[in-house]
Amino acid sequence: MNPDVLILRALRLAGHSGASGAGLAKLLGVSRAAVWNRVEDLRRHGYEIEASPHHGYILRNSPDALHGDDLMARLQEPRFIGRDIRVFSQTSSTNDIVEKLARDGLPEGSVVFAESQSEGRGRLGRTWLSPAGMGLWFSILLRPPLHPSFATQLTILAAVAVARAIERQTPLRPEIKWPNDILVGHRKVAGILLELASELDRVRHAVLGIGIDVNIPAESFPPHLQHVATSLAAEAGCPIDRPALATAVLAELDRLYSRLRDGDFHEVGDEWMRRCSTLGRHVSISVGSRSITGRAEALDEDGALLVRTEHGALERIVGGDVHLDRRP
Amino acid sequence: MNPDVLILRALRLAGHSGASGAGLAKLLGVSRAAVWNRVEDLRRHGYEIEASPHHGYILRNSPDALHGDDLMARLQEPRFIGRDIRVFSQTSSTNDIVEKLARDGLPEGSVVFAESQSEGRGRLGRTWLSPAGMGLWFSILLRPPLHPSFATQLTILAAVAVARAIERQTPLRPEIKWPNDILVGHRKVAGILLELASELDRVRHAVLGIGIDVNIPAESFPPHLQHVATSLAAEAGCPIDRPALATAVLAELDRLYSRLRDGDFHEVGDEWMRRCSTLGRHVSISVGSRSITGRAEALDEDGALLVRTEHGALERIVGGDVHLDRRP
Repeated sequence: MNPDVLILRALRLAGHSGASGAGLAKLLGVSRAAVWNRVEDLRRHGYEIEASPHHGYILRNSPDALHGDDLMARLQEPRFIGRDIRVFSQTSSTNDIVEKLARDGLPEGSVVFAESQSEGRGRLGRTWLSPAGMGLWFSILLRPPLHPSFATQLTILAAVAVARAIERQTPLRPEIKWPNDILVGHRKVAGILLELASELDRVRHAVLGIGIDVNIPAESFPPHLQHVATSLAAEAGCPIDRPALATAVLAELDRLYSRLRDGDFHEVGDEWMRRCSTLGRHVSISVGSRSITGRAEALDEDGALLVRTEHGALERIVGGDVHLDRRP
Repeated sequence: MNPDVLILRALRLAGHSGASGAGLAKLLGVSRAAVWNRVEDLRRHGYEIEASPHHGYILRNSPDALHGDDLMARLQEPRFIGRDIRVFSQTSSTNDIVEKLARDGLPEGSVVFAESQSEGRGRLGRTWLSPAGMGLWFSILLRPPLHPSFATQLTILAAVAVARAIERQTPLRPEIKWPNDILVGHRKVAGILLELASELDRVRHAVLGIGIDVNIPAESFPPHLQHVATSLAAEAGCPIDRPALATAVLAELDRLYSRLRDGDFHEVGDEWMRRCSTLGRHVSISVGSRSITGRAEALDEDGALLVRTEHGALERIVGGDVHLDRRP
């Protein structure tokens, strides 16, 4: 494992008691001078590391910037997700990067973050605003042994993971809007874009893209988005620690994806339904040029939305744009 | 349009009456000397073009090798498929090439042939034998406005197109084996591999890979494949004209894909069923580690196979390996 991952993990575990230079040198199998050089390098990246004669090295503060090594150091031996994490300062779209790497054999669970994206995408080819350093824009490579018709399970688990992580790292209470938006106070703070490379009867790989508006100031959203989009910081009234939130999302994703791999997905689906603000509401849904109005009654096992129309028919909706009516 | 496409098309249309150098020069908007140079170049590629003082140029014979310009010349203004055709002498896999080009904006209907593939693939990651110059190995980029669950329609139309083209260009009577094999005399002569790049509710693009064993000698198949695979030449007892067969397949694909795009797919599905030797037969199907035995009764509208098991239940099979029992 990369020495910076080991040093940062040791420093975080040691906390205020500090980690001795000798101990770190032994852990890494290098000299104390070499440890000093790595620490200097981390300091240049914005890590405030105190060197005390009595306590050794103490990590006092981390930058808000994303560092792959630090994120890997924070994760506790993930089973799938986060074993490899790369951070790009700028990309076209993290989904595109992961898709390209996937074809070159990138291992399952690898994660690519970008501090900003020039061509961030939402569903159906829409653009996604990704200003530098203000959000979490990342994509994860998965190679699930799934039939393509079960791929919705991946967006379901991603939505639950993002909602859980926001709850842990902020004072906010996020809701899920079918099929793949995370809302706070009825406005979108995060979205999920799943892209599949598949044959008819198996998923070859899936790229799970997640975008979270973390510290974008409310006034930075273009006027036409201000009533539909917001950020965690704008809602919470304080800046949110991005690396901590990123770690929390990845840890939850790893936990929930392990469930899926173990064939134990039922409870994840149940949690999704509890968190889903769409169920029980009157909705109108645009599916292509068609519009369907009714009450969102339930989800089926594939994650499709079952809508009871005004004529009493139950329609099964696999995708589309949902508009929630004000009446309950 | 490429001048070679225009020249070859004019020569084929003119047939034995020949096309005059002056006429070709006018068609191309170049000098007669320039036409002569292009003809010389085509001769170097194996085209036997006679230059007669009375009749002008007459195409007497074409090489069996595949040339993109010639294939485009043979197709009569396709609506979708074959507007751009490229031939590689050797590739890893034509599906991989088209997939890469798709992400760079290759237009729908573009076709990539390879004279041989080093990593030709069948379904489920299996290898596909693709010896140089003996088959047709090609992939087509499609951008159909389909929900992913209807993507089976693309393999259905491909199977019908291949079967029709074989019937037109050989004395053979091919059958379709569910889900995507073309058989002659109970042995496989062609296969179809559909790979999708999709989101949950739309296909972004589809790569339709087709492999046809045209002129492979029977004895060239490895022993373990000899009872399951054959070639058109081995069955017909004579070599088959590859460029003519390639043109026939592309023309049929264009016709059937236009049907799909026009929302008029019903008859294609009916023809598929008539040609499908799996229906009405006793089958055993391996789906992962599970095996299902019964009578293949019908297809549903998504192309799934409905199997009546020995216990009377009707199972819906979306993918798997079918073994046809000998009894009818």
